[in-house]
Amino acid sequence: MEQNIPYKIYLEEQEMPKQWYNVRADMKKKPAPILDPETLKPVTLEELSGIFCTELAKQELDDTTPYFDIPEEIQNFYKMYRPSPLVRAYCLEKKLDTPAHIYYKFEGNNTSGSHKLNSAIAQAYYAKQQGLKGVTTETGAGQWGTALSMACAYLDLDCQVYMVKCSYEQKPFRREVMRTYGAKVTPSPSMNTKIGQKINEQFPGTTGSLGCAISEAVEAAVTQYGYRYVLGSVLSQVLLHQSVIGLEAKTALDKYGIKADTIIGCAGGGSNLGGLISPFAGEILRGEANYDIIAVEPSSCPSLTRGVYAYDFCDTGKVCPLAKMYTLGSGFIPSANHAGGLRYHGMSSVVSELYDQGILTARSAEQTAVFQAAQIFAKVEGILPAPESSHAIKVAMDEAIKCKETGEAKNIVFGLTGTGYFDMVAYQKFNDGQMSDYVPTDEELAKALGELPKVEV
Amino acid sequence: MEQNIPYKIYLEEQEMPKQWYNVRADMKKKPAPILDPETLKPVTLEELSGIFCTELAKQELDDTTPYFDIPEEIQNFYKMYRPSPLVRAYCLEKKLDTPAHIYYKFEGNNTSGSHKLNSAIAQAYYAKQQGLKGVTTETGAGQWGTALSMACAYLDLDCQVYMVKCSYEQKPFRREVMRTYGAKVTPSPSMNTKIGQKINEQFPGTTGSLGCAISEAVEAAVTQYGYRYVLGSVLSQVLLHQSVIGLEAKTALDKYGIKADTIIGCAGGGSNLGGLISPFAGEILRGEANYDIIAVEPSSCPSLTRGVYAYDFCDTGKVCPLAKMYTLGSGFIPSANHAGGLRYHGMSSVVSELYDQGILTARSAEQTAVFQAAQIFAKVEGILPAPESSHAIKVAMDEAIKCKETGEAKNIVFGLTGTGYFDMVAYQKFNDGQMSDYVPTDEELAKALGELPKVEV
Repeated sequence: MEQNIPYKIYLEEQEMPKQWYNVRADMKKKPAPILDPETLKPVTLEELSGIFCTELAKQELDDTTPYFDIPEEIQNFYKMYRPSPLVRAYCLEKKLDTPAHIYYKFEGNNTSGSHKLNSAIAQAYYAKQQGLKGVTTETGAGQWGTALSMACAYLDLDCQVYMVKCSYEQKPFRREVMRTYGAKVTPSPSMNTKIGQKINEQFPGTTGSLGCAISEAVEAAVTQYGYRYVLGSVLSQVLLHQSVIGLEAKTALDKYGIKADTIIGCAGGGSNLGGLISPFAGEILRGEANYDIIAVEPSSCPSLTRGVYAYDFCDTGKVCPLAKMYTLGSGFIPSANHAGGLRYHGMSSVVSELYDQGILTARSAEQTAVFQAAQIFAKVEGILPAPESSHAIKVAMDEAIKCKETGEAKNIVFGLTGTGYFDMVAYQKFNDGQMSDYVPTDEELAKALGELPKVEV
Repeated sequence: MEQNIPYKIYLEEQEMPKQWYNVRADMKKKPAPILDPETLKPVTLEELSGIFCTELAKQELDDTTPYFDIPEEIQNFYKMYRPSPLVRAYCLEKKLDTPAHIYYKFEGNNTSGSHKLNSAIAQAYYAKQQGLKGVTTETGAGQWGTALSMACAYLDLDCQVYMVKCSYEQKPFRREVMRTYGAKVTPSPSMNTKIGQKINEQFPGTTGSLGCAISEAVEAAVTQYGYRYVLGSVLSQVLLHQSVIGLEAKTALDKYGIKADTIIGCAGGGSNLGGLISPFAGEILRGEANYDIIAVEPSSCPSLTRGVYAYDFCDTGKVCPLAKMYTLGSGFIPSANHAGGLRYHGMSSVVSELYDQGILTARSAEQTAVFQAAQIFAKVEGILPAPESSHAIKVAMDEAIKCKETGEAKNIVFGLTGTGYFDMVAYQKFNDGQMSDYVPTDEELAKALGELPKVEV
């Protein structure tokens, strides 16, 4: 054990990033533009500003500016829960008896329980700056809704969350955290919106879906004066804000003279992975360094490993813009996998393009194996991880075990996006031996992929 | 806002305490000795070693050694989740528009969600050192059980938790966290023990009580070979281990040249309060400094503010030793107050003696006001606090508001013992406006106090 590397590396406040990094600026081939769902033409700033705040719409479309200043008020908010620690997993290394050095960037030390707060405060801030009354959003697992509620409470901004009805009922604790922060939480489909009314009529007693909740949140944003819609993943602006994860991690590694060999993140919509890897991917793109970057997705929702790279709708309701991304088809309904945050049919267009260019590789992991890794990690490192984050743990452990075989002392860095305190129903299934794995068949995948929109750009 | 004091003060690893501080050593008048429940004579080391590990029994009885070395393995475990941050509550100060400077020592950044882990790892460590197979304990709210499960998982020690049956059923998430860490969690009263069988016979369908769970855990410890009983609060050994809270806080304050004026902690059994204030109380006892120390308890269970200072049983079942403490009587059943960790009928004998000597004062707070303070705190400081911890928040806010009136720029330091993620049922009541306050009548208090054991020492 090197005595000079502490268990936890905390940056000093003055070492925290003052700018977000936009990896698109360093990509020679840029991610394809997002398209208007009606005209199938690239969305203009004006069009996008009807849904998002103007400043965020600008960030969404800007693929050339490498750095964006982080406004001081956001920097101050970050100081309440950041810098997040870069942890040397000494105990996990010992448990695995590996020569590898394992580090994880832990984003779970805030009440939202995940990295989502990094973008929530930025999106709420720009809404406030624009003089808006409030924002609307949807939430499934609840991490994003919680993060947005916290950010809005801090800025005294109205927050309307459409929560998938089955989550609203099955995750009452998540709901109550949001309510405590003053958010208005509505089970979706509701009778507040036309689309909600229509769905309730068509499917009486439905417990909702994320696609439906998105549609309701977007409708609520465009029909109320002074509201905009916000989204916690997939978007390029979200990856921009999440770059604080990677920037802090890189500063911490540099401070101790550690060169990462392997960088691992779980991937759903791509917000955490994209944020963690951005500065490292930038170095690869500029020819300054090389890293083995691995995205880990659930076998039940394998957009990178088994999807296609094509234009698709970002939402099941087909009201949002289209993006070119690795996708399983917007009609793909993943099985009831408990890693709620990784159940998205597509992948951030930035991460997709980096994957297509070979900057990163991808692997999928099955749920039971992921929970086994989570349990080992919890016992030796003391943190009960979120199921989503545990996908990264699983592959980090696999890589560390490989090092034991080869004798290599690689530096493995992975993103521990959050805690599993609100995921105990899934852990209970695991503890009771009732967890099942599910891998979609080729036929199932072909069906949803057969319904991709026909787009020529 | 002083730019030189960061939002969060994290000590360097090498600044962490290497010894626990035993405040009893600096007390001229010592806490009264604990008594054997049968003979009513001071308990000997030999007797106590039948229930507790020998090393812990020694710590329990030692009121002269000022410092105990923290074994290296415990120091390493501490490094996984400590040092805990001393946070400057800039946002709360702004919200209250107070000239006071508010600081809080946040102990919630670990999976047990509270400070309990500080003593759990110490107690598990000495059990392991003694070659024991495992430990038994009881848990009500579940923080202690979780902490002990984590410590035992780390040391590969068997952990048997008797969980009050109503909590076992109403807090399934807490139960599952413990199970994920490998603990055997049994709803109490169970059929595993004689006392459990007896209670189940006498009161069919009972949902249990903490007193009953203690009795079962003690019986399980003394009837299984290689087991000992452990307890998460009240005991002097627990306060010794928890002194890391105060020692870290003091080092952090000293590092930035901050002299605390007021120190506030919530008080149930006294483990957090005692740990936080120990080094400061030591300075007062040695005549080196002065502080205004305030213990905050719930109005529904006011042992310091309305109890008497007398010998009493530490448990409802009357199987544990007696201690001289501020007590409401071991037969006192507090109302269904959601601040589960503060529902103990008595108070640590060390804290009681310090209170009796005037080293600290005490106040009580009503539940609704406590949750109102909790909500304000959550919104501006971003951390959803445990109901227990929120008692300290309430009085810290009261003191800061007083400073606004007097214009004093006092340094107020309080202990934020943990997070409220597993307390959302209580927050829901608050959000729904269905929270009630309860203050026992003088008659109710007189009844339980009338049943105090007659002890003359």
